[in-house]
Amino acid sequence: MRRKDLLGIRELTVEEIETILDTAEAFREVSRRNIKKVPTLRGRTVINLFFESSTRTRTSFEIAAKRLSADTINISVATSSINKGETLIDTARNLEAMVPDAIVIRHPSSGVPHQLARICRNTSVINAGDGAHEHPTQALLDALTIREHKRTIRGLEVAIIGDIAHSRVARSNLHLLTKLGANVRVAGPRTLLPPEIGRLAESRPGKIVVTSFVEEAIEAADVILLLRVQLEREASAHFPSLREYASFYGLNAKRLQLARKDVIVIHPGPVNRGIEVASDVIDGPYSLVYEQVTNGVAVRMAVLYLLMGGNKLDAVKEVHEATHQERAGSRPVTTTTDAS
Amino acid sequence: MRRKDLLGIRELTVEEIETILDTAEAFREVSRRNIKKVPTLRGRTVINLFFESSTRTRTSFEIAAKRLSADTINISVATSSINKGETLIDTARNLEAMVPDAIVIRHPSSGVPHQLARICRNTSVINAGDGAHEHPTQALLDALTIREHKRTIRGLEVAIIGDIAHSRVARSNLHLLTKLGANVRVAGPRTLLPPEIGRLAESRPGKIVVTSFVEEAIEAADVILLLRVQLEREASAHFPSLREYASFYGLNAKRLQLARKDVIVIHPGPVNRGIEVASDVIDGPYSLVYEQVTNGVAVRMAVLYLLMGGNKLDAVKEVHEATHQERAGSRPVTTTTDAS
Amino acid sequence: MRRKDLLGIRELTVEEIETILDTAEAFREVSRRNIKKVPTLRGRTVINLFFESSTRTRTSFEIAAKRLSADTINISVATSSINKGETLIDTARNLEAMVPDAIVIRHPSSGVPHQLARICRNTSVINAGDGAHEHPTQALLDALTIREHKRTIRGLEVAIIGDIAHSRVARSNLHLLTKLGANVRVAGPRTLLPPEIGRLAESRPGKIVVTSFVEEAIEAADVILLLRVQLEREASAHFPSLREYASFYGLNAKRLQLARKDVIVIHPGPVNRGIEVASDVIDGPYSLVYEQVTNGVAVRMAVLYLLMGGNKLDAVKEVHEATHQERAGSRPVTTTTDAS
Repeated sequence: MRRKDLLGIRELTVEEIETILDTAEAFREVSRRNIKKVPTLRGRTVINLFFESSTRTRTSFEIAAKRLSADTINISVATSSINKGETLIDTARNLEAMVPDAIVIRHPSSGVPHQLARICRNTSVINAGDGAHEHPTQALLDALTIREHKRTIRGLEVAIIGDIAHSRVARSNLHLLTKLGANVRVAGPRTLLPPEIGRLAESRPGKIVVTSFVEEAIEAADVILLLRVQLEREASAHFPSLREYASFYGLNAKRLQLARKDVIVIHPGPVNRGIEVASDVIDGPYSLVYEQVTNGVAVRMAVLYLLMGGNKLDAVKEVHEATHQERAGSRPVTTTTDAS
Repeated sequence: MRRKDLLGIRELTVEEIETILDTAEAFREVSRRNIKKVPTLRGRTVINLFFESSTRTRTSFEIAAKRLSADTINISVATSSINKGETLIDTARNLEAMVPDAIVIRHPSSGVPHQLARICRNTSVINAGDGAHEHPTQALLDALTIREHKRTIRGLEVAIIGDIAHSRVARSNLHLLTKLGANVRVAGPRTLLPPEIGRLAESRPGKIVVTSFVEEAIEAADVILLLRVQLEREASAHFPSLREYASFYGLNAKRLQLARKDVIVIHPGPVNRGIEVASDVIDGPYSLVYEQVTNGVAVRMAVLYLLMGGNKLDAVKEVHEATHQERAGSRPVTTTTDAS
Repeated sequence: MRRKDLLGIRELTVEEIETILDTAEAFREVSRRNIKKVPTLRGRTVINLFFESSTRTRTSFEIAAKRLSADTINISVATSSINKGETLIDTARNLEAMVPDAIVIRHPSSGVPHQLARICRNTSVINAGDGAHEHPTQALLDALTIREHKRTIRGLEVAIIGDIAHSRVARSNLHLLTKLGANVRVAGPRTLLPPEIGRLAESRPGKIVVTSFVEEAIEAADVILLLRVQLEREASAHFPSLREYASFYGLNAKRLQLARKDVIVIHPGPVNRGIEVASDVIDGPYSLVYEQVTNGVAVRMAVLYLLMGGNKLDAVKEVHEATHQERAGSRPVTTTTDAS
């Protein structure tokens, strides 16, 4: 991969997506070992720059960086002097002057990661969610999870249900799934279906179907991707009540029966139990929400590694060597061979 | 030790307590060296999950983990998206999906660490204080401090003074001290003595004595354990005024003379000078408050190490080897032998 | 350097300042490499104790410590239980009991780092800004930047412009620049020139000139050091309006022409564009604001290293060895030689 940044799925080629997923598969092994660490990015600096708080995503990136032996710096802008009226450009240039190797950025405004990437010419920028635009590592971890269970994404019937208009997760997944050859059916309240989606559907006839009936989307689906209802802002504005949302769009056991027998259910979390999904479904055998979280660490390891100049074959080799060394070690917990 | 979690002192056997204290003694050496680090837990991930802010305890655990070469992740729930209405179970499962080796949890509600430990089957859970229930590593560091100065805890007369009813420190210490054979005298305002303590005293006649006269508790004591008056909530509710508390229960130089000549004074901190203890006492020769803090790091290293599968003899060996290597090193500050 | 602490520039000898700058030059190389890390301070613990929020300075110290392989602990007092009414002395003693090797402290009150240094006898204390008193690493990074471009500081004409009375940056720079033999001209609104500066100027005739006309300070200057207008507190109190400040004291292209052709412009950041400096000046060819940030990491590495017992020659040797090892490595990203 010859890319400096990961800003969105839209820019990626099919080959790049597959390289990331294959590399993530190799790195998934690392978290299954006792010593969950490879020396791959030792001496590299990764800055997590979060303008919106997100414990999960920040923690996932931080763990990913640490398992590659990179140093991590967390900057949370709520508590930051970046508030002292500095422009984004100045913040970016200042951070770059400390020579980080990567900046992971989450920002409430669409496009900010792209601006940052343009300013920081020598630093990899990774979009960890920008406004309602993209959240590429989420779509990649979703794809890794789907691929693991369905072997290939090509030809799958995928239902995406919920607030399509405001969801960066939906947007990144739409790009990724159509690139990889899935058929996507999008369902949600009319008020939460953005106008562009109709045009997109027309431009790819048969590949993207839009409906406001959730049953139509779910029927014979291989994969159901649920979106989170963002309680804090939307409920009152875009649909009459949460109860109504749950009854018309929530995934419950009955609706799940419309899907294929081997359907899988994924959700970016955190889950609103009883709203977009019933508790028995999210805790049930079709739900893969925790595998998604595990895959999130692996995908973020892969993205950090590839953007900083690594390649797929080396990753496989690294993990193999490290596993071999761990097995060769004589004592269970400790590894004094490389000295204290 | 074949335990996955450390949830309270109540569950521990005498042998387990002694194993932790012995291992802590070995690890205490590490912090006395120039290179305060052993490679023991390299590649392990420790999450500090704090639902109450506590700089001291979090810092102590973080330093302990780092001196064992583990990677640490801090999650402070005040600033966390865990607030987005997610249940504890979902939070726990999500964290576990990132495959941490240990979660250190502090929570205002009693029993939450136990719930977490039940959910996270492959992750060690360490209780860093839950409501008014237990704070096991505090009692262990108190015991380490006492043992260091008194050789054995068996047969010692220990006074615990203050708000027994709301103190997790008191509760964990009562379990630990009686298990290890000390005689405990508990003193505090009647309103701050919980009803159970009377029953506990009756069930162990001569081992636990309850009184509302502080002098009775202090007389001929080997150890005085002071509890912190939690200014933020109690003063007004449970006793008339801080001045009255200080005059009836505060440990001052005069009261201290009632104790044995070689008495030691311990306090979990932070200290309210002039309330539960006079400044000249806490700064005086009998006070061991700073040794307690030093021992806190050692105890937490021991707990992390033992729960993750280490054993006492290996710890001693690790520390010995690392010390030997440091001495063998030729240059004072640097250790390039294992390369940059 | 045989000093335990770095509290201010005032205490340093010329030789000490030059040792720090020379060592920083050696460490500057580290951040230019792929593997931005030397093993110099492995096993050392550095605590960042910030009573005022400052993302830049904290991040700079954290990156510096990590690139020396030290462990770092961040304590931000806004969110800290240090607020539970504990005295500074107790906080200091408690932190010291965890045996950190260095505490980096920022505090709104002048003199607090000195108090801390007196209490913590075995821990290096580094002042990262105390009230309106000193900010020594800022002055050192300014000096490193000047020296890089002007070879020597001796004999240079340096203009310091802005709120001299409340600026710890101005104070530290005044000490450093006069010690190293520069001639300093200080300009700002009369209300922001402290009375002592007049006496200081009289005591060093020709070395320090004080004026309220910015043009007088800038004329034929080799270096212009701008101070930040602290919007949050001063504007209303000390001068009529920001617009007036900008028009009388702001550095714009026209005023810049009064300086020498090879003038350099430095600013501690964050910059208020359009107030103390025009955008075209700060983005222009004379401005070195980003080099300052880069030099900040190098200076902080040098300070941490020297206070913990390192010396200049070893630093050069360390960096050389590490660079040599990196070049000798066969693969571009990874370094498995020292094992996972």
